[in-house]
Amino acid sequence: RAVTLLTRVLQLAVAATMLTWVLGYLGGLNLSPRPLAGGNDTGPVFNWHPLLLTLAFPVLMAEAVLAYKAPLVEQRDRTATKMYHFALHTAALVCTILGVIAAFVSHTAKRPAPIPNLYSAHSWLGLAVLSLLALQYAAGAFSYLWPKLSLANRQALGPLHRFLGKAVFTAGIATMAAGIQEKATFVQAFGKPPGLHAAIMALPAALVVLLLVLALVVLFHHA
Amino acid sequence: RAVTLLTRVLQLAVAATMLTWVLGYLGGLNLSPRPLAGGNDTGPVFNWHPLLLTLAFPVLMAEAVLAYKAPLVEQRDRTATKMYHFALHTAALVCTILGVIAAFVSHTAKRPAPIPNLYSAHSWLGLAVLSLLALQYAAGAFSYLWPKLSLANRQALGPLHRFLGKAVFTAGIATMAAGIQEKATFVQAFGKPPGLHAAIMALPAALVVLLLVLALVVLFHHA
Ligand code: HEM
Ligand code: HEM
Ligand code: HEM
Ligand code: HEM
Ligand SMILES: O=C1O[C@H]([C@@H](O)CO)C(O)=C1O
Repeated sequence: RAVTLLTRVLQLAVAATMLTWVLGYLGGLNLSPRPLAGGNDTGPVFNWHPLLLTLAFPVLMAEAVLAYKAPLVEQRDRTATKMYHFALHTAALVCTILGVIAAFVSHTAKRPAPIPNLYSAHSWLGLAVLSLLALQYAAGAFSYLWPKLSLANRQALGPLHRFLGKAVFTAGIATMAAGIQEKATFVQAFGKPPGLHAAIMALPAALVVLLLVLALVVLFHHA
Repeated sequence: RAVTLLTRVLQLAVAATMLTWVLGYLGGLNLSPRPLAGGNDTGPVFNWHPLLLTLAFPVLMAEAVLAYKAPLVEQRDRTATKMYHFALHTAALVCTILGVIAAFVSHTAKRPAPIPNLYSAHSWLGLAVLSLLALQYAAGAFSYLWPKLSLANRQALGPLHRFLGKAVFTAGIATMAAGIQEKATFVQAFGKPPGLHAAIMALPAALVVLLLVLALVVLFHHA
């Protein structure tokens, strides 16, 4: 279907735009801070945060949410589809956790003084989404995999699992928009961008619009 | 239903929190900028922007989206419900347009120098949502009111109208989260907040979490 093709193009475009922003404009990636006179640069540690969360939500979780409707890798039967869905959610969850750890670590490693944790709207929204995701993941594994509910109970749970699943995906994309806005405003306020319309400010603007259209086409598969 | 009651409480909580932030911490409301030595304070003009958009999306549009499921004001029949839905969307659209005008006017009226328009991720996301809203509003009025499609065509349009309707509502809430984050980061960067956990920073954090739960319970009526 044309919408499915558009979905794949948008997933790639989102990933490529985030990669360009992070590698080309925000200082790249590194596992430890770069020492500076009288402090350090934790940017390349922090940058794992947006990159891993981009991998988690618009790439892996989007594919997981499409697994039953339009999988990229065709599955033999319903059991294989379930394992595909489960594996993709597991990969997304691992990326999410590592990405959030990267944000905390980069704050705490900052010198001369650490940056406080959990002061922003974005970070509290992120924690709320993380709680919903943990709940949905645990409930999904418990109900459909192990110990597994009776068929009747699994069928009864279906609508709630699908509703919360789409909600968590959408809420994650919205959290990304707030996080991207926060980072862009940091650049505007504390960095020295060559101007308000330079690439370092235009890429995040393009990103959030791409994320909106991506969420629309992913959810359209479920309309 | 308990979820409907919770929805109403959250709508009030969102409106009250935004009102408190705007009136108590961001400098209140005014129709023209306050002159200052060598410039002016356009904050009280800008503040209509978040307030009117809070009225538009989580208050009026949320009620419009619930009109067919759990209206605050019980309606006689389906025609009355349709006019109720239409009136609420019209009110929401008017608030949205006035609110966006307030942002542009406050930018352009700034002295000693105007603030540029449309430089942020939030503002481009906002324009994208505004286009979808205009499309949905025009398509809804054209199809269901005047000139009105045939019954068969109206029925065929139902699923798309409902899907896009929920999508526009959700995208508006997400845009608000990005806008709230942007304003909070401006306060953090350019204002002198008494600290990162002061009320002026905590209110926006509470707001976005309230908005997440509100969107969840509104959409749950449609699950
Ligand atoms: C669903 C995806 C995301 C979640 C769940 C999430 C969650 C979080 C959390 C919990 C923190 C707090 C870390 C701390 O207090 O040390 C944080 C920080 C941050 N995040 Fe995200 N994030 C997401 C995506 C993004 C993206 C895509 C960006 C884009 C740049 C971003 C930008 C930031 C920034 C700038 C901070 C540091 C400032 C602060 O603590 O608010 N986030 N994020
Ligand atoms: C990790 C453990 C999980 C398992 C074992 C699992 C299993 C399943 C199963 C069996 C279905 C089909 C249900 C039916 O049609 O009756 C399903 C559908 C779905 N799941 Fe999960 N799930 C898990 C986690 C998640 C998570 C974490 C999310 C989202 C954050 C999610 C989102 C969805 C969605 C949106 C659907 C609907 C797919 C469609 O109808 O095309 N699932 N899941
Ligand atoms: C769905 C709701 C919203 C829409 C459609 C929207 C749209 C817009 C647009 C189009 C602009 C650009 C104005 C210009 O360039 O002069 C703007 C600016 C702004 N908005 Fe919103 N907005 C929404 C909600 C909010 C909320 C709730 C806040 C919270 C404070 C907010 C904060 C801002 C800020 C700080 C600006 C000025 C900086 C900038 O241009 O990005 N917005 N908004
Ligand atoms: C302004 C002109 C509009 C008219 C005349 C109109 C009319 C209608 C009608 C007749 C229905 C019932 C359709 C059915 O069940 O087959 C409906 C449902 C719905 N509309 Fe609209 N609409 C308009 C605008 C909008 C807008 C702007 C939005 C959202 C941004 C929206 C969101 C919805 C939603 C979510 C439903 C589903 C309600 C439910 O099933 O409980 N509508 N509309
Ligand atoms: O374990 C499962 O539960 C659901 C279904 O049987 C109940 O809705 C499904 O498709 C599985 O693979």
